[in-house]
Amino acid sequence: MKTKKISDNVIKRLPKYIRYLETLASLGVTRVSSDEIGEQMGLTASQIRQDFNCFGSFGQQGYGYNVVELRAKLADILGMTGSRSAIIIGVGNLGRAIAKNFSFGNCGVILKAAFDIHPSEGKNVGKIPLYNINEIEAYAKENPVDIAILTVPSPAANDMAVRLIPFVKGIWNFTNVELNGIPENIVVEDVHFSDSLLALNYYMTQNELEEKN
Amino acid sequence: MKTKKISDNVIKRLPKYIRYLETLASLGVTRVSSDEIGEQMGLTASQIRQDFNCFGSFGQQGYGYNVVELRAKLADILGMTGSRSAIIIGVGNLGRAIAKNFSFGNCGVILKAAFDIHPSEGKNVGKIPLYNINEIEAYAKENPVDIAILTVPSPAANDMAVRLIPFVKGIWNFTNVELNGIPENIVVEDVHFSDSLLALNYYMTQNELEEKN
Repeated sequence: MKTKKISDNVIKRLPKYIRYLETLASLGVTRVSSDEIGEQMGLTASQIRQDFNCFGSFGQQGYGYNVVELRAKLADILGMTGSRSAIIIGVGNLGRAIAKNFSFGNCGVILKAAFDIHPSEGKNVGKIPLYNINEIEAYAKENPVDIAILTVPSPAANDMAVRLIPFVKGIWNFTNVELNGIPENIVVEDVHFSDSLLALNYYMTQNELEEKN
Repeated sequence: MKTKKISDNVIKRLPKYIRYLETLASLGVTRVSSDEIGEQMGLTASQIRQDFNCFGSFGQQGYGYNVVELRAKLADILGMTGSRSAIIIGVGNLGRAIAKNFSFGNCGVILKAAFDIHPSEGKNVGKIPLYNINEIEAYAKENPVDIAILTVPSPAANDMAVRLIPFVKGIWNFTNVELNGIPENIVVEDVHFSDSLLALNYYMTQNELEEKN
């Protein structure tokens, strides 16, 4: 797995900046200061400038950022305008849900195929073809694969990840397993549902405390 | 929906602090400085102290934070030691995957029941009972519900969220729909899968650039 030069947390903030900038744009706002972005993000203006400086220089001192331009630059940094190919490995409930509901296009990712150990339920998942997992090496020889979306059962996760090494550039890992033995040149990104549930918990508690007072 | 006093982004960082502190604890590290936490999180030491100061005073100047104590305090702030009740609304692929795979206990949440418009496939989802959505009001009268996990199809999302208003404190929204008409005293938390996919995209691009050089 890759040692990351720019902190993962800086990268994770970029989609949030983009959502905020899209909201501003939809309200007709054309310029925004690092102070305003910072207030929205719970960071200081200096931290905002520091985040953006990681990627070169945006904005002008005393003038702020052009909302549409900054959004476009951040979207470009995140590859939202690209066209990477993805496959889903493991078409249980979660794999199926992701294949059917997720709009990958907005992220610059095109879902191409799905693989399962028992692809018996049909030849497609949503609009993409479903293959037996035994065909994956042959498929990858013919079709370049950028991203494998790993939604196999946990006990199968690490072996499957290792099997993917020869032909993927990134693994989007939904399995709650910490993957081991993945080389540096393959990026692993884990999905943490629980972060969001814990935030919900926190705000519910705050509401209850306020109602008591 | 609630106007939040402490920034959502501060709250969202807490689980990441907790994971880092758990890693440190597992390595036998007992103290950590705000500098070290900041380096790990891509923030300044001052920002780290500012984040923790939102919740009262932790740590001692020049001495750092006690890893186990700080982890316990943050976990307590996020309600990880609590026991909130949750129900799942919409047992399609995603609802079923969440019901079966997600370990809510670690988050202080207990999954109690599931509801669907066509609960015909069985009387249970995993280990929890499955009811017809028409029974939800009667269920809520007998069983207090803290959190509704919204996994209905997008076109049904807002109407269902409004129907939940009388008896939930929080909605964990997986529907990709921006919910409208939810009052201030109910917390809505949206799940953004794409943030994680965009980070994956970014690091893959970085790897490719490095390989070219």
